[in-house]
Amino acid sequence: MQLLTDLRSIIKDDTRVTANETVINNHGQDLTYHQPSNPDLVVFPKTMEEVQQVVVYAHKNNIPVVPYGAGSSLEGHAIPIKGGISLDFTEMNKIVEVRPDDFIVKVEPGVTRRQLNKHLKRYGLFFPVDPGADASMGGMAATNASGTNTVKYGAMRQNVLGLEVVLADGKIIRTGGMSFKTSAGYDLKDLFVGSEGTLGVFTEITLKLTGIPEVIQAGKAVFKTVEEASQAAENILKAGIRVARMELVDEKTIEAVNKFSDTDYIESPSLFLEFDGSKAAVEEDIRFTKEIIDEAGCVTFQFETDEKARNLLWHARHEAALSVVNLVPGKRLTSSDVCVPISELSQAISDTRRLVDTYHFQAAAVFGHVGDGNFHVLIGIDPNDAEEVAAYKDLNRKIVAYALERGGTCTGEHGIGMGKREFLRMEHGAAVDVMGSIKRALDPENILNPGKIF
Amino acid sequence: MQLLTDLRSIIKDDTRVTANETVINNHGQDLTYHQPSNPDLVVFPKTMEEVQQVVVYAHKNNIPVVPYGAGSSLEGHAIPIKGGISLDFTEMNKIVEVRPDDFIVKVEPGVTRRQLNKHLKRYGLFFPVDPGADASMGGMAATNASGTNTVKYGAMRQNVLGLEVVLADGKIIRTGGMSFKTSAGYDLKDLFVGSEGTLGVFTEITLKLTGIPEVIQAGKAVFKTVEEASQAAENILKAGIRVARMELVDEKTIEAVNKFSDTDYIESPSLFLEFDGSKAAVEEDIRFTKEIIDEAGCVTFQFETDEKARNLLWHARHEAALSVVNLVPGKRLTSSDVCVPISELSQAISDTRRLVDTYHFQAAAVFGHVGDGNFHVLIGIDPNDAEEVAAYKDLNRKIVAYALERGGTCTGEHGIGMGKREFLRMEHGAAVDVMGSIKRALDPENILNPGKIF
Ligand SMILES: Cc1cc2nc3c(=O)[nH]c(=O)nc-3n(C[C@H](O)[C@H](O)[C@H](O)COP(=O)(O)OP(=O)(O)OC[C@H]3O[C@@H](n4cnc5c(N)ncnc54)[C@H](O)[C@@H]3O)c2cc1C
Ligand SMILES: Cc1cc2nc3c(=O)[nH]c(=O)nc-3n(C[C@H](O)[C@H](O)[C@H](O)COP(=O)(O)OP(=O)(O)OC[C@H]3O[C@@H](n4cnc5c(N)ncnc54)[C@H](O)[C@@H]3O)c2cc1C
Repeated sequence: MQLLTDLRSIIKDDTRVTANETVINNHGQDLTYHQPSNPDLVVFPKTMEEVQQVVVYAHKNNIPVVPYGAGSSLEGHAIPIKGGISLDFTEMNKIVEVRPDDFIVKVEPGVTRRQLNKHLKRYGLFFPVDPGADASMGGMAATNASGTNTVKYGAMRQNVLGLEVVLADGKIIRTGGMSFKTSAGYDLKDLFVGSEGTLGVFTEITLKLTGIPEVIQAGKAVFKTVEEASQAAENILKAGIRVARMELVDEKTIEAVNKFSDTDYIESPSLFLEFDGSKAAVEEDIRFTKEIIDEAGCVTFQFETDEKARNLLWHARHEAALSVVNLVPGKRLTSSDVCVPISELSQAISDTRRLVDTYHFQAAAVFGHVGDGNFHVLIGIDPNDAEEVAAYKDLNRKIVAYALERGGTCTGEHGIGMGKREFLRMEHGAAVDVMGSIKRALDPENILNPGKIF
Repeated sequence: MQLLTDLRSIIKDDTRVTANETVINNHGQDLTYHQPSNPDLVVFPKTMEEVQQVVVYAHKNNIPVVPYGAGSSLEGHAIPIKGGISLDFTEMNKIVEVRPDDFIVKVEPGVTRRQLNKHLKRYGLFFPVDPGADASMGGMAATNASGTNTVKYGAMRQNVLGLEVVLADGKIIRTGGMSFKTSAGYDLKDLFVGSEGTLGVFTEITLKLTGIPEVIQAGKAVFKTVEEASQAAENILKAGIRVARMELVDEKTIEAVNKFSDTDYIESPSLFLEFDGSKAAVEEDIRFTKEIIDEAGCVTFQFETDEKARNLLWHARHEAALSVVNLVPGKRLTSSDVCVPISELSQAISDTRRLVDTYHFQAAAVFGHVGDGNFHVLIGIDPNDAEEVAAYKDLNRKIVAYALERGGTCTGEHGIGMGKREFLRMEHGAAVDVMGSIKRALDPENILNPGKIF
């Protein structure tokens, strides 16, 4: 195979350019219901120069290049639907420089969030964005991922300060930098964040860090109905309390978590909360929050200050997605990801729960980062069961239409990939043409992750 | 004049399309040293449709269109250096919709920050971005302005949720929306924020609001040297205290403020601070801050909880820029605007002060939003005195080069306009070509604010 020979002459380490069947298959699919499609081969670059040379080669020969981080994205983002090269960043995972006094770290794109936070602990610092999977910084930047504490600390866009990018023609640019703000020209940094590998390949990422707060307290408030739980969330936000985390998990999800993680949480709609800051501030926030949730009908409220107990609590929340699919062996993940304005939240969640129930899926959970107005409906389906797929798509369209009608977005954090392309124009209309003209200006041959977003 | 006749046939209200000499002159200059250049005429649109029709006309006839907010930008941004139409948004200043429960307001671009905050007070809400001038939301969005409490609440980019934009060919798009986060396609919203009128004209802006905190305490800490003051600032940030405002003002600036505002502040380098939040949190923050600044050599520390006294304190800070130029009647404003990483801040400020002093300008102040690593050198110069202009440019280049060497930016908040074009490539290298290709993709005839940024 010519491609293999050519790329091996570029990379000069045969183990890092492979057409091995297992590797190829792994890079041609993800955890979700999206149809697999294999790359022609997989390259594991170790340096920016190697990435550049691969892209220059691909550009010259009109071969698709699909960046690959941890492969945990949920809309088929990293599936090479037109074949070509899967560029896997697993071996490009050095933490390049920590500048603790500047609250800055520079990393290679393959660094994962757990790896990073483990490393940062010694400095009393952490990187706040925490999607449920142990994703890579490159993938997280490329999807504008967010997580449980985005409500306080922002999504990737607010925490990526700078990017080194290999463009479609192999040119290198650096966007953003090390300042906390800038007005110097167009904001390319935020254009590349969330571009899903379609505008450029990131080879180094500068991230903003946060000091580990003096005090962290986590708690779980249990309610009788999902309406009460989401109303409580809405009221906490309206009161201006700066929660660090606020996650809603409905009873079906708790059921699944209990089965999967061997916990015995009360199987009722629950709010997982976290507060951080100075001791005095946290105490005040909790006092105020307790008033609000009591009024909203909270049944029990349990607190964990101890790090172990806290981690256990959050572990359960983080496992929610996988727990649900685990309930239905052989089925694969689908996840809606709408956001709505805060005042629409509690109504949206209860309407959505009702809507979902009319579809009678075996496993369907509703949960989300309600502090951002963002919630997911998670359903396990069989991608080869045409009827089930059709039912899911029908439901999904209704969920998105509902959110868009209320001024929301079709995706708060997962991105468009191949799974939400039809919703992009519903949400953004003619603005999609502007996106398209930017794509054409930066990648006229359409070699970077073709078939995604548009 | 054909242009006048044509535009009056579009706008159908002669008073809002004018070639009146005074109006033309006012729109051809700003407060700064930049050379004036008049528009051919000034249009005051009242609706998105009028803006659209004007742009379509300009597009067809290849006439420059220069959006104009309050004209307070500092790098000649709104000066029509190629003539054409100055599109003044003063009469398009309606507050379209307040959604207090969603922390959202929709405004027309001519709404100014004072007008907005006056209106929002009744809801217990405020819009945090507060540049020293009473700027318009359109101009602030177009320059990615920031202000004294950006250190806590972010710049325009973090507080603009959505934009309605008239493109160069008259098409209308809407970017962003009402959700607090989104990963739906390319981030056009942040591309337009900071685009200085060169990519599109904003006709409606959706802003994120903040609840007025329970307690606000402002204070002023006086130091013997600017090194001590900036070291204190650096240490406060490193300690992770979430100050709401932290402004450094050097002694020359305080001198000017005292003369201009009839105050009698101690003429020594000072940190203006503000804390907000719950009562307990604010008290804790202040206690901790006092420890830090005492250690850094603070001479006196004075607090103001009372709203009047607080406003007086901040009034002095807000008047700093104008006070300095007022010292030298007839001279005009120049302002550098660099940002550096936090750990470089105190060294940068003291090196800069020393550098500035070697130039012997009559009035030269150093002050800034040190919580963001952002500081200004403000000098009054005579734009017709070639020697003075040359000396200023020489100094300015050195200040920028110093910041860039340390990983900083040439402009933290003012933008590029016509005054910092030479620095854009120094800072961003080949990324400027990508900016250029986006400009060409969106405005191939270069009718939108030509000659700015590039
Ligand atoms: C159990 C579970 C829970 C999850 N929870 C969350 C959540 O809470 N929040 C959230 O936001 N997401 C969540 N996700 C989705 C997923 O974790 C995120 O989308 C994540 O950002 C993907 O990162 P990755 O490294 O796996 O990227 P991949 O899946 O490998 O790739 C994602 C996209 O990024 C591109 N890309 C990867 N590396 C680069 C690079 N170096 N340069 C340019 N482009 C690149 C790829 O081409 C692709 O388009 C969850 C997923 C799972 C399975
Ligand atoms: C005393 C003083 C203090 C200042 N302090 C600060 C500060 O602390 N922080 C800070 O960031 N700045 C500061 N500035 C600079 C200035 O206030 C900001 O740049 C402000 O954002 C400009 O807003 P404006 O309404 O005056 O815009 P203008 O000066 O009228 O225009 C600025 C730019 O925006 C474009 N524009 C205006 N309206 C629109 C629209 N509707 N659509 C598209 N483009 C548009 C214009 O074409 C131009 O390029 C200060 C200025 C002065 C005079």
